[in-house]
Order: sequence, then C-alpha cells, then structure tokens
Amino acid sequence: MNRLDVTEKIIAAKVSKGLKWSEVAAKVGLSKEWVTAGCHGQMTFDAKAADAIAEIFDLNAEEKKWLMVVPYRGSLSTSVPTDPTIYRFYELVQVYGTTFKELIHEEFGDGIMSAIDFKMDMTRQADPNGDRVQIVMSGKYLSYKTY
Amino acid sequence: MNRLDVTEKIIAAKVSKGLKWSEVAAKVGLSKEWVTAGCHGQMTFDAKAADAIAEIFDLNAEEKKWLMVVPYRGSLSTSVPTDPTIYRFYELVQVYGTTFKELIHEEFGDGIMSAIDFKMDMTRQADPNGDRVQIVMSGKYLSYKTY
Amino acid sequence: MNRLDVTEKIIAAKVSKGLKWSEVAAKVGLSKEWVTAGCHGQMTFDAKAADAIAEIFDLNAEEKKWLMVVPYRGSLSTSVPTDPTIYRFYELVQVYGTTFKELIHEEFGDGIMSAIDFKMDMTRQADPNGDRVQIVMSGKYLSYKTY
Amino acid sequence: MNRLDVTEKIIAAKVSKGLKWSEVAAKVGLSKEWVTAGCHGQMTFDAKAADAIAEIFDLNAEEKKWLMVVPYRGSLSTSVPTDPTIYRFYELVQVYGTTFKELIHEEFGDGIMSAIDFKMDMTRQADPNGDRVQIVMSGKYLSYKTY
Amino acid sequence: MNRLDVTEKIIAAKVSKGLKWSEVAAKVGLSKEWVTAGCHGQMTFDAKAADAIAEIFDLNAEEKKWLMVVPYRGSLSTSVPTDPTIYRFYELVQVYGTTFKELIHEEFGDGIMSAIDFKMDMTRQADPNGDRVQIVMSGKYLSYKTY
Amino acid sequence: MNRLDVTEKIIAAKVSKGLKWSEVAAKVGLSKEWVTAGCHGQMTFDAKAADAIAEIFDLNAEEKKWLMVVPYRGSLSTSVPTDPTIYRFYELVQVYGTTFKELIHEEFGDGIMSAIDFKMDMTRQADPNGDRVQIVMSGKYLSYKTY
Amino acid sequence: MNRLDVTEKIIAAKVSKGLKWSEVAAKVGLSKEWVTAGCHGQMTFDAKAADAIAEIFDLNAEEKKWLMVVPYRGSLSTSVPTDPTIYRFYELVQVYGTTFKELIHEEFGDGIMSAIDFKMDMTRQADPNGDRVQIVMSGKYLSYKTY
Amino acid sequence: MNRLDVTEKIIAAKVSKGLKWSEVAAKVGLSKEWVTAGCHGQMTFDAKAADAIAEIFDLNAEEKKWLMVVPYRGSLSTSVPTDPTIYRFYELVQVYGTTFKELIHEEFGDGIMSAIDFKMDMTRQADPNGDRVQIVMSGKYLSYKTY
Amino acid sequence: MNRLDVTEKIIAAKVSKGLKWSEVAAKVGLSKEWVTAGCHGQMTFDAKAADAIAEIFDLNAEEKKWLMVVPYRGSLSTSVPTDPTIYRFYELVQVYGTTFKELIHEEFGDGIMSAIDFKMDMTRQADPNGDRVQIVMSGKYLSYKTY
Amino acid sequence: MNRLDVTEKIIAAKVSKGLKWSEVAAKVGLSKEWVTAGCHGQMTFDAKAADAIAEIFDLNAEEKKWLMVVPYRGSLSTSVPTDPTIYRFYELVQVYGTTFKELIHEEFGDGIMSAIDFKMDMTRQADPNGDRVQIVMSGKYLSYKTY
Repeated sequence: MNRLDVTEKIIAAKVSKGLKWSEVAAKVGLSKEWVTAGCHGQMTFDAKAADAIAEIFDLNAEEKKWLMVVPYRGSLSTSVPTDPTIYRFYELVQVYGTTFKELIHEEFGDGIMSAIDFKMDMTRQADPNGDRVQIVMSGKYLSYKTY
Repeated sequence: MNRLDVTEKIIAAKVSKGLKWSEVAAKVGLSKEWVTAGCHGQMTFDAKAADAIAEIFDLNAEEKKWLMVVPYRGSLSTSVPTDPTIYRFYELVQVYGTTFKELIHEEFGDGIMSAIDFKMDMTRQADPNGDRVQIVMSGKYLSYKTY
Repeated sequence: MNRLDVTEKIIAAKVSKGLKWSEVAAKVGLSKEWVTAGCHGQMTFDAKAADAIAEIFDLNAEEKKWLMVVPYRGSLSTSVPTDPTIYRFYELVQVYGTTFKELIHEEFGDGIMSAIDFKMDMTRQADPNGDRVQIVMSGKYLSYKTY
Repeated sequence: MNRLDVTEKIIAAKVSKGLKWSEVAAKVGLSKEWVTAGCHGQMTFDAKAADAIAEIFDLNAEEKKWLMVVPYRGSLSTSVPTDPTIYRFYELVQVYGTTFKELIHEEFGDGIMSAIDFKMDMTRQADPNGDRVQIVMSGKYLSYKTY
Repeated sequence: MNRLDVTEKIIAAKVSKGLKWSEVAAKVGLSKEWVTAGCHGQMTFDAKAADAIAEIFDLNAEEKKWLMVVPYRGSLSTSVPTDPTIYRFYELVQVYGTTFKELIHEEFGDGIMSAIDFKMDMTRQADPNGDRVQIVMSGKYLSYKTY
Repeated sequence: MNRLDVTEKIIAAKVSKGLKWSEVAAKVGLSKEWVTAGCHGQMTFDAKAADAIAEIFDLNAEEKKWLMVVPYRGSLSTSVPTDPTIYRFYELVQVYGTTFKELIHEEFGDGIMSAIDFKMDMTRQADPNGDRVQIVMSGKYLSYKTY
Repeated sequence: MNRLDVTEKIIAAKVSKGLKWSEVAAKVGLSKEWVTAGCHGQMTFDAKAADAIAEIFDLNAEEKKWLMVVPYRGSLSTSVPTDPTIYRFYELVQVYGTTFKELIHEEFGDGIMSAIDFKMDMTRQADPNGDRVQIVMSGKYLSYKTY
Repeated sequence: MNRLDVTEKIIAAKVSKGLKWSEVAAKVGLSKEWVTAGCHGQMTFDAKAADAIAEIFDLNAEEKKWLMVVPYRGSLSTSVPTDPTIYRFYELVQVYGTTFKELIHEEFGDGIMSAIDFKMDMTRQADPNGDRVQIVMSGKYLSYKTY
Repeated sequence: MNRLDVTEKIIAAKVSKGLKWSEVAAKVGLSKEWVTAGCHGQMTFDAKAADAIAEIFDLNAEEKKWLMVVPYRGSLSTSVPTDPTIYRFYELVQVYGTTFKELIHEEFGDGIMSAIDFKMDMTRQADPNGDRVQIVMSGKYLSYKTY
Repeated sequence: MNRLDVTEKIIAAKVSKGLKWSEVAAKVGLSKEWVTAGCHGQMTFDAKAADAIAEIFDLNAEEKKWLMVVPYRGSLSTSVPTDPTIYRFYELVQVYGTTFKELIHEEFGDGIMSAIDFKMDMTRQADPNGDRVQIVMSGKYLSYKTY
C-alpha cells in the first residue's frame, strides 16, 4: 500500500457517497483548498485531521497512517497538463511567467514568492456578464542574499 | 524585424534608462500586470498605448507597428521553467492542479476558468513575519455544454 | 474504480454487442460527436444521459456515477499521436496552426476560438472523386481585453 | 537564402504595409486560408500566384523562386504549441482525437481523412451570445486496403 | 479486454505452436506483410480473415471480434525505436528523409507517398557477398491542391 | 565554414539555377538517390564526384573539400519529422516496425537489414487509379553471432 | 507470457540460487558477455544453449521457447540511463562520440563499426594504483558505398 | 570567443590543410584518441600541447588560451545521436548496458568503471572476412563504500 | 520479485511500525544517510546489515537476498523531479552547476568530485531566524589525465 | 545587449587575463561561490559589487547595469547536464533524492531546504588516499503549514 492507493480510495469513496470537498473541509475544520490538495495526496494531515478524513471516507488504520506521511508531491501525469481546466493555469505561467518575475523583483527585489509558506482561496465572483472564478494567492516573499 | 526584436529593445532600454514597470504602466494608463506582459511580447497594444510605449522606449515607427500585431504567445524557453521565481508558479500547478480542477467543478460545474477573459493584480501584503506577495486572479467561468 | 475503467468497459461492451456510436447517440438524444467523446471519458453526462448510457452498456450504479463526474481530459497517450487517423489532425495543427491564428485575429481581433463553448459535426460528403469527410467546427470567439 | 527568410520578409512587409490576408488572397485569386498558409511557408505557389505575391510584398526574383519550391512543412516551434490561439486546436485533438477516429471509422471504415487532399474555410458566425468562429474542413477519405 | 490483449495472445500462441508468419498468411490468403502487421495489432481483419486467424491461434469469439475493430496504430514503445533491427529503418528516415522528399517532389510535384493506400513486399535477394533484404514499397501519390 | 554551409549553398544554387536532382546525378554519373542524399550533407563524395558537384553549383576549392569530408549524418531537425512527406515514412516505421522485424527474422534469422551496405531506387509506377511512388530498398543482411 | 517475464524469472532465480554469470556461461559453453546479454533478454539462444539455460534456472518448456525467439532489444528504461555504472558508458559516448567517429573514418573511410557483427571481452586489469576494468570491443568495419 | 569557436576553427583548418589526427597526435606527442577528443573540445591541453596544437592549426594567442581552459563537455547535439557511426556506440549501451553492469559487479563488487581515470586505444584488426575496428577501453574501478 | 518490491515493502513496514530512519541506522550501525539510501533501493547491503534490516522490517530470506544485490540506481520517476523538497536540489544544480564546475577546476584542475567515493551528512543547524538544514558532502577528487 | 552577453564577456576576459575566481571574489569582498555564480549570470550584484566586477573585467557602463538586473536563472543547456563534473551533482539528486527528502522530513517535518535563503562553501579536504572536494550547504528550513 502507498499514498496513491489511499488517494484513489478517497476519490472513489467521494464519488460513491456523493460528497463535496467543501463539506469534507468543514468537517475537518480547515480550508477547502488545503483539504482538497491533501486528499489528492499533496499535503500531510496531522492526527486530528487524519481521524476526520478516515471517518468520512471509511479508511482503515493502515490507510489513515499514510495520510500522515509526507507525500511525494506532483499531481500531473505529464509535464504539460492535458486537461483543459488545469492547462489554463499552465498557460498563465507561459503567458505571464516573465511578468510574475518582473513585478516581484520590482516590488521586493531579487527573490521569489514562496510556494511552501503559501495559502490560497478560491471563490465565485458574481458578474452580470457571467460569473468569474477568483483566486487569491498569498506566498511569503523570500529574498536571495549575498554571502 | 519581428516582435521579439522589439521586446528585446524595450527590455534593454528599460535597463539603460532605469525605468520601473509601474511607472511605464502609469504613463500608459493601464495596469502594471497587463503592460508588463505586453512589453514582454505577450499582449497586443492599441494605437494609443503603442504611442505611449514607443515614446517611453524610443521605438521607431516600424517597431511601434509590431506592438499592435497579435504576438505568438509563450514566454518560457522550456516547457518546465528553470528560473526559480517562475518555477514556483509551475510548482503550484503541479501541487494544486487537481485541486484547482476539483474546486472549480464543485462550485461551477464542468468548465474552466478562462485565461483569456482574465485579469490579475499583484500587491505587497505587509506581514510581521515577512511581507507576502499577494496575487488576485479573476477569470470568467466558461462551461462545457452538451450538443 | 475510476473513469478509465468505465471507459474501457463501455468500449469492450460496444465491441461485444456490435453497437454503433450513432445508435448510442440517438438513444441518448444528443449528437454523435458529443456522446462518443463522453463515452471515451472526455465529457460529463447528466443524470438522464448517464441512465441511458448505463442501460445501453450494462453499467452498474457505481459505474454510472462515474459518468457524471468531470473527467481528467486528454485522450492521447503521447503528446504527438502515433495513430495515422488522429495524426492527420495533429498535422493540420502543424501545417495550418499559424494560419488559424492569423485569420482569427484578422477577422475578430486578439483572441481565440473557444474549445469549451464549442460544438462539432462530422458528415459524409459525397464526391465523384471519392467521398470526403466534412467537419464543421464552431467555437465562440473570446477576446483578450486590456485592464 | 531559404524559404524561412522569405516568410519572415513577407510577414514584416505585411506589418509595415498594413495589409490584410483577405486582401492578399483576393489579389492572388485563391482562398484566404490557402494563401495565408502559403505565405507562412506551408504551401507551394505556382508561377502566377508567386508573381502576385512578389508584387504585393516587394520580393525580388530570387525570393520569388523560393515561393515555388516545395517547403519543409511544420509551423510550430514546439511539439505542443504554447500560443493559446493555436493551443486550442491542439486541445481539440487531445479531447476529440479518439472521437474523430471512431466516427470516421464508423461512417467510412478503416481509413483516414486526408490532410493533403484537403480544404478549409473559416468564417464568422453571428450569434447574439457572442459571435463564433466557424471552420469547415473537408478532406478526402482514404481507405486502408488488404493486399 | 482490448486489442493489445489479443495481440499478446496471438504472439504467445505463435511461439508456443512454432508457427511462421508466412504459413499464417498462406492460410489467411493474404500477403505475409499485411497479415503480420494485422496480427501485431496494426491492421483490421474482415470476417473471413478473422475466422482464419481465430482458428489458427485458438481465439474465442470475443477475441475474434477485436480483430475486426480498427486498432489504435503505432507499434513502437518510444518515439525513437531502441531495437536495432527496427532502428535501421528509423535511421533511413534520418539519413534519407530529405532525399525521399526531394525526389518525390521532383518526379510528381508537391505531395506525398500515401502510407494508407500502400503495399509492401519483402524478399530475400541472393548475393555472393551475402544475401540481401529487398523491400519494395508502393504508395499512391497524393497531391496538395490549391483552393 | 562547415558542411551545413555547403549544403545550404548547394540548395540555394539549385533553386536559383532551376536544376533537377536527376540532371545533377546524370552529370555526376551516380544514382539520383545517392547524389541527392550527398548534396543534402548525408554522403561523402570522392574527388571526381566532388569536382562535378563543385562545377555544377559554383563551389570554391574550400567548399569542395567539405564534400569529401565524412559528414555528421541526420537530416531531421526533430526526432519525429513534422513535414508530411517525410512523416509518412516515419509512420511506416511506427505501423510496420514490428512487421519488418518479424519478417527479417523469419526469413534470415536474428539480424538486421544494413542501412550502410544499402541502396535504394525510387520510380514512378503508372496506375489508372493514380500513379504510385515505388521505392525499392536493398540492404545486406547482417547476422548476430554467438561468441 | 513474453520474453520480459522470462528475463525476470532468470534474474530472480539467479539471486535466489546465488549463481554467477561466469558460472552460467561456463555451463552454456559461451562467453560470459554474450550469455549475460542473452539472459537479460538481448540475445537469441539456440536450442542447445536454451536447454542449458532452462536447466540452470528451472525454466519450463514454454519459457525455454521464448529464449529462442528474437527479442525486442533495448535494456534501458530511459534514453539516458540513470544508473551510474551504466551512465559512465553513455558519458563515454557523449565525450568521445565525435572522436570514435573521426578515428574510424581516418583509418577506414566512410563507414561504421558494426554493433551486430560484434564481440566484447571484459576483464580485470591488475594495477598497483587500483585495479582497472578492461573492455575489448571488436566490430566489423562496414563501408558506405556509392551507387 | 569561446571554446566552440576554437574547435570549429581547428576542424576547418584540418579540412583545409588536409591533415590527419594521427599526424597531429604524433606532433603533440600524445595518443590519437586523446588529442582528437581534445581538438573536439572535450579535453584540456597543457601549455606544451597547446603550443603544438596552435602551431599546427595557426591559432592565435587568445585561441591557444582557450585550449587550456577546462571545457563544458558533451559532443552530441541530441541525447540520442543521429549519426550512424556514433549511434552504434549508443546502441551498445542500449543492448549491453545491463551486461556491463552485471559483469563489473560480479568481478569487482558494487562500483563503476571510471570514465575519468580512463584511456582508450582504437586499432585496425586485419580479418579475412573484412577488417575489424578494435577498441580497448581501460578505466579504474571505483567502489561504493558504506559510511 | 525484484528490488523495487523489497523497497516498497520496507517503506510500507516503516509507516506501519512508525519507525524512524535514524533508529534504523542506529540498529544497523551505519550512517542515517547511507541506510536511508539503501532502504530506498540505492545502495547494496552486506550480509550483516541485511540481517539487521530484514529483522527490523520483517523481510523473508528471499527479500533479504535482494538487499545484497547491486541495484539499478535512480530514485526519480522523471528527469526533472516534481516533488518540491527534491526539486530544490535540482534547482541548485541548475543555478550553481557552472559554479561547482569552475571552483572544482580552479582548486584541483580538470576533474570531478566523485559521486561514488562519496559520503554525506545532514544535520539541523539551530538559527534564531529559523533553523537551517546543513548538508556536508565529501567526494574524492578524480583527475582527467592525458595519455 | 542582455545578461548573457555580459556573462560571455566576463568569461572571455577571465581567460584572456588569466584571473582566478577566488581573486575576483577577494576584490569584490564576497564569497567565491556567490561571486562565481553571479559572474555566470545567476546572481544579482549590488552597485558596489558591480563596480568592482566592472573594473576587473573592463565592462562599460551599460554592461555594468546588467549585473544589477535580476537574471533569468538556469545555467544548464539541457535538463540533464552532459558535462561530467556537473552531471555528478545531478547523479546525487537521482541517487540521494529520496534520501534528502526523507531525512529532512524526519528531522524537521513537512517542508523543504530553501534554495533561496541558502549559502554554500566549497573547500579542499586533504586526504592521504587522494584529496577530497568538500561542499557545505546550508539552507533555511521552510515548513508547509495548514490553513
């Protein structure tokens, strides 16, 4: 057994039970973004969250332990995603990659936005021309230093 | 001459003149995100914006015309970016790709967040533990339909 | 179980029963293009269509649920398809890619033909020199906007 | 000198002169789709068309000769296109590739739609919900035969 | 079950029974080239040929049906073949690719040799310096046309 | 200067002078297949042939010397060719690769068809259904031996 | 069953029985280099050698037959090997590739060292500064010829 | 200027002067294998050897300095070589890679043959069935150790 | 059974038993770095260490034998790692690769730091600004020599 | 002009002047590791350091400005380095990648060693069995956090 087996069991159970990630997150007591990533094998749950997840998806003790092991991250099966919903984010990196870089450097200096000390919130933005997906990302600025 | 030549001329002029993208954007009268992307050859300027850009960076008439031609987009030289500042965004797609997908589908149904009808705002978030980069993305939800 | 398992079951059942996609589409009440794509794991069926599909291919309740889950799209096993019938479409993108781009921009401005708000119809075109495959594609024009 | 040099000269001249592909095509007396592809180095012009192209874009005798040489085709610089407008067509191959294949086989038998004996027409489709890009493709059906 | 399963069963049965492809082809009544390709999952058998194949290799009714389904073609597991016998053909494409192209264009004009309306014959050529493999390929010439 | 420069000069001169490869080959006194490959930088000319080539294409003494240097072979710019005329040969390797292998082994034993001790002849095959390209390949059989 | 299954069974049996390849080769009566390659699915055994191999590794009649079938060669799972011991040989091709080429051409003319009519011997070379691995390769020279 | 420029100048001078690598090596006083690799930008010359090389190929003082700088190694332009003479060595790594590994481990234990503390000698082996290329490689055995 | 199976069993047992690598290493009597690498299938255990590992993870006699077989090394499933923790080391090679090279050459001459005669130690470095990961690598310098 | 031009000028000047990186670093007043990386276009110099660098390498005012612009990082021309000295570091990531990950997680929890807040020191380690390269890396631990 490995983490991937647990991820697949969770996803299959979700389909079978007809659950929503926001409901799962509410029961776990964390954001829907983080919980969804964790259930897809990208984050490490602590014991309390693992208990909640295990109960929701009927995981056994062995499976629950895997939720608390740091996973090998990376949720795409190819380096360029084929799924259109995910590809659009890759496209943003292609089109706006140099812009992200320039504006971070202009505002902060030589460094990066952390993808580790990071959080994210996705919401619906009502709009008469068609509702919009709004994503707010926040990552700590980390600076290159001389030595 | 092609758009890439103009992009390189703009970037070299910016270094030489010591300009900031936010200053350029203010003169053009558009957001710093969109103007920076355009100056990196990823967006199409209209005549008025092209005039402003041409004046700021000393472009000649021929070069200005290229700013108004729709570019071949894609600002990365490899499918996985090597630059750490840009890579972190690719990493977010790797780690959160399935999460983006799941939460969009849960909130909206089967569809995508548009990367075309899209806008973005990057700001500094003051934080006692170290300031943070905040990026707010907003893209229209587009739905797959049956036919 | 996942969507791929359901796709494989549908395809095996189709071979075994000797069905045609156009017959399946007629029973489902949608176009043959959309239904074939859906049965190959590329579209999401609503409850009514899923009922019809399940009955046609003898799917159980669990399998039927997967038809209603948004799939991870992408039907090719390599980035350049090896199958000659599919490769020809890739070849069209290679040969006509810049032409598609130029003519869309000339007629509409800076933007794209949506592959989401999209429909397609494939028919036989009788021709004394050999019948022809005719494909009519229609996708909404989406415009890049300044901000 | 090679064909690529001529292509680049044509494109630069078009930007400089502010021409439209449809105007160029009208002067050449062929479809806008075929002429645009040819000007992008993907088709071979006959002497009469080459004369017209040369006059429109101020090509010299040497450059005109290259228009009549069969080119090495392929207009993308990467196997998966990075430009969003072109990528959407690649995405159609990813999502609908198996569907194209199944429906051609169902209607015609084991064979392909030719990408050589092929023509294409792109038009604007007025639509109250936003105009649409319509592309009509027609390729001869070619059959695999036993021997 | 899918076509690959049937291919593997045929190959295993051939090893077990000690058959030759030329014997199989003789029983089927078609060329050894076409039958070998078909048994490797690259061609579609008609009912009569499928009956013969099924009897030779002890296939059941379900497996026989798969022989009559158009396969997803492509017999190499990597884009550049690793097997030396097959690699030599890839090497011919690398070394003679531009030559094939030039001579077809010189003799016929702008077009291709069809790989669909195609046949092939492989024979032993006795030679005092060591026998030779002779391959005669014949493919219909298909012409690009203006429109 | 290197061999590629000489190849490009030859090709440009051929376009400019309006020569045919079969005419060039006749003057050189070798087959059109071998001479075309050599002029594309894939074969090594001896002194006599190099003299003929140099005279035909107005090469200087330095350039002529390069014709007699063994070249770094490989005429494709990508591992999978994008040009449709050349791609069809790659497609034959994909579809018939395992068949080539099986039939060589069945007729000769464990070994290969040499791509070095190799010759080739391409001719037009008149056919009422459309003329055909015929290619006769002949390569020495080379056997793996135990030791 | 296929050749890979037999290879894996042989390797597992070797570990379990604690055999050495040199002992296996001695029993088979061929070189250790050839026998090791054959046991790794890269060479074809004749009946006598297959009998010996089958007895050593407890293969059944079916498995023994596969040893006599020409394998699909290529023992690396990636085009650049990740294992350091094997990578060093790839590194030699990277560093000395052009040197191999130049010296073969200088000594023999335009041609290659055969990798088919080839043999190899690996021995320990005692050395006070640390023993050395000595590999003697011998391949027939094959010449490109004009035609 | 960089090392590649010097390599290209050396190769062009060699063609122009009609030199042989064995003659160059004799003048330098080192093996033909090492000198050829060095002249192809893969080895670092000491001052005495650089003087000799510079005199032979008419290099100026600046160019001579580059011969003494450690180069960025790797003489292939693609990860799998396209040139047939070099490819055969890559093929040996594909076919014999696991054999090299097994026999080194069997004779020496867990370690590698060094590609750094390495030397090589290439000679002609007269043979009535056609002369053979013989390559003797010798690399120090390096052992993995526990810690 | 192969080494990968043993690796997976060890990892699953570690999760199930809640062990730490440092505890495992203490029992084996070797460094935590080497033991962890070995348990991940990257090093070869001697009999004594294999006994200890087998006891800790409940391996049977067959599985224990595999621990003593030299493994096929390479612990990443893609050439560029997707996991952020591992990617940072790849990033160091991207950013500091030429620096590593230059400084080794400046201090030692033309050669490499061995990755075989190598050891490593990872420790926590207390720091008021946040603790740091310290890695001390030590590899024997190996020199290229002329011959 | 861009940063790459400046990097190439610095490297050429270093060869021409016969400088050492440690001497350059001493004049700049920073570590040799950081200065070497910066001179290879991987770090951003402040005004004082840029003055020193410009003086050492005879850079003009324009070139000096580029030293103060944040560069697009990544010093390898292929995703897997071909140079043996650099490849050994890539090999360490392949062999020890999972070990780095496990031990960081065991000691610190779920997080990474920063490659931004990072420093490094490379020294010679005298050793009677041959001197060793010692590299001490120190990077801040960054923790994934729940939200």
